[in-house]
This record gives sequence, C-alpha cells and structure tokens, in this order.
Amino acid sequence: MRSYRKELFFQIPTRRAFINITQEVEACLMESGIRDGLILINAMHITASVFINDDESGLHHDYDKWLEKLAPHEPVSQYRHNVGEDNADAHMKRQIMGREAVVAISDGKLDFGTWEQIFYGEFDGRRRKRVLVKIIGE
Amino acid sequence: MRSYRKELFFQIPTRRAFINITQEVEACLMESGIRDGLILINAMHITASVFINDDESGLHHDYDKWLEKLAPHEPVSQYRHNVGEDNADAHMKRQIMGREAVVAISDGKLDFGTWEQIFYGEFDGRRRKRVLVKIIGE
Amino acid sequence: MRSYRKELFFQIPTRRAFINITQEVEACLMESGIRDGLILINAMHITASVFINDDESGLHHDYDKWLEKLAPHEPVSQYRHNVGEDNADAHMKRQIMGREAVVAISDGKLDFGTWEQIFYGEFDGRRRKRVLVKIIGE
Repeated sequence: MRSYRKELFFQIPTRRAFINITQEVEACLMESGIRDGLILINAMHITASVFINDDESGLHHDYDKWLEKLAPHEPVSQYRHNVGEDNADAHMKRQIMGREAVVAISDGKLDFGTWEQIFYGEFDGRRRKRVLVKIIGE
Repeated sequence: MRSYRKELFFQIPTRRAFINITQEVEACLMESGIRDGLILINAMHITASVFINDDESGLHHDYDKWLEKLAPHEPVSQYRHNVGEDNADAHMKRQIMGREAVVAISDGKLDFGTWEQIFYGEFDGRRRKRVLVKIIGE
Repeated sequence: MRSYRKELFFQIPTRRAFINITQEVEACLMESGIRDGLILINAMHITASVFINDDESGLHHDYDKWLEKLAPHEPVSQYRHNVGEDNADAHMKRQIMGREAVVAISDGKLDFGTWEQIFYGEFDGRRRKRVLVKIIGE
C-alpha cells in the first residue's frame, strides 16, 4: 500500500464562496503516482466543506441563498455559540454541505461521473484555511 | 491490496424515488472476493444520493415530504440554475441526503448494524443514471 | 495492508445528545498500531450520527435547536413512520449531521485541523447503541 498527503491552502476574501478544486486534487493524484485506491479530500476547518456537485454559477447562487434560509447568519445574537464569534451559522452550513468527499481512483484518475466536480465551500472566510488530500492505494 | 470496481445502472420512471441497493452491493462484494477493507458506494450523478437508512415505506414518504419542504421543486423559477433545466432542487436534496456511503468490510461482509440498508436516492429521474461501487482491501 | 475493528457502546439517558468520542477513537488507533491509512467511524444505528465539528457547548445547543426546527420531533403524528414508533425526526436529523466520518491517519495520528473533534450524535437515545471504528493501512 502506498500513501500520499498534501494540504491545499485557501484565503477567501469574502465570508462565503464555492471554489472548484478539482484540478488541484488531480495534480495531487498525478504527483502521488497512485493508480488505484481511494482519495479523501476534507476541510481541516469546521466552518468549511468539501463537496461534489456542479460547476454552474446559477446553482452556486441558489446554494448560497438556500443555506442562508436554512441557517441564517443574521441576527448573530440568535446563536449561543456567538460569544466573541459570529460564525455559528457557518458550522451549520458546513454540516449540510459536508466535511469530506471520498472518491475512487481507477486507472490513475478520479473515477467520476460526467458532471462531478470537487468544491471547497467556505462559510467563514477572510483568513487562511486548509484542505487535506490523502490518497491510499497502489 | 486488491481492488474491485463496478457500475450499477438505474432508470427510475419518476422524478424521485428511494431504491434499496443493499443486495446489489452485497453481490459486488461477493464477486470481488475481498474479505477485509472498505467499500465506497457513490452516486455518479449530482442530482442523486447514496445513503444508509431504514427500509420502511412510511419513512421514505416522510423523507420525500421533508425534502420537498426544505428544497421545494416548485416554483421552478425561484432558482437561477433552472435555465433550460428544472432540477436545482434535486442538487439541494442530494446535499442533505449525501453523495456517498463508506462501509467497513469485515469477514467478507458489509459490517452493518441491525437496520442499516443502502439506498439510491433519485431526485431527478426518468433517465439512465449510475452508481459506482469501489472496494479496496484483501 | 493491516486492518483493525472495534465497536464503541453508548447508552445515552436522554433522547438527544452530542458526545465527544475523539479520545476513544484515538485509543483505537493506538491499539491498532496502524501509522498510515484511513479510519472510518460510523454510527451502526440509523437514528444516530458520527460527525466532526467543534467541542463547544453553545454550538451544541444551537445545533439541537436548529435540528428541531428543520425536523421537529412534535407532533409525532405528522410522520407516517411513527406507527408504534416516535423517532421519524431522528432519521432526518441523522441525515443532516451524517452517518460517518472518514479521517486520514498520518504519522500514527488522526490527521486533523486545530479544532476538529469527533462526535457521536444521538437523536433517539435511552437504549444501548453502537459506533464502528474500522482502520485500514500500514
């Protein structure tokens, strides 16, 4: 069994954003030389997500509006977590969108359907954050 | 390390449905000959889910109603994604129910609790779609 | 490839609770002797979650209130699943919080960001329930 590990870094200037990281993950896979196995991609922060969906700006707008409806940022005072912080909603949004994606590696590639793309979902940005890429296989 | 890969196909005649795929996944495991490791089962489409829960028709009805409340299909025009499409809600429902399940394999079996069953969750059916089964182990 | 398997047991006296299980999972990892690979931690019950987030009591209060808003327990009669049962809401809450966490193991440790902690989320307690810890690697 071989393994590979890398951290990706993000500094998003806004509070929220969705960033397509598929190419960066593919570069990790290439670098690893692993041709068959599993790849785990996870946010190392608890107010951010890694998820797989469509790279379509209308959908990303819809996601943002929808997550704001399900877990509104304002009023900040509605959450007990917000003592010296204002990001309780980000902890909720991250649960809906998920912490991690696990993807099969077959023939040296991400074993994806036609439209699958990997995203970093930021819900409390404006500081440096990390995503872990871990690969095991052969 | 050994590995196994198979695609399962679904053509659901309705927009939404929950299909128990546990037996098909068990057949893959048997075919693989792998007795210890991990199995990944994931939707290859971004408007569908693979998840683990109860095979109880009342619950499935409750899930469908609940998902419609959290991410309504109508009015289609409320979503920016719906330009030439009408499935934005399916992209949301899939995030709540999840893309994938990762299950332990021990003694040649899915290492499950009493009531765990694997489901394909379709949120935008009426066309051919795929689920990936990937196993690594020994 | 080496593997390790253990069940953790919980008997939560209340219907709902969030329990930090990070130390128990770390003890499993230590016992396994595996230094590099992947660890899967999953609820073996379909009305419970394993998830990764912050160990902060205000946030846990917020989560509980938020999940009750998204999938209320009462009135029990609103759910068709509740024939001889009253836990349909628990099946929904578990979908939002997730069944499982997959974590990288690097240098013999959980490969975590600063604030990542593993929780058992109980949504239908007052009976004995299990979490599976499965590790594969070297």
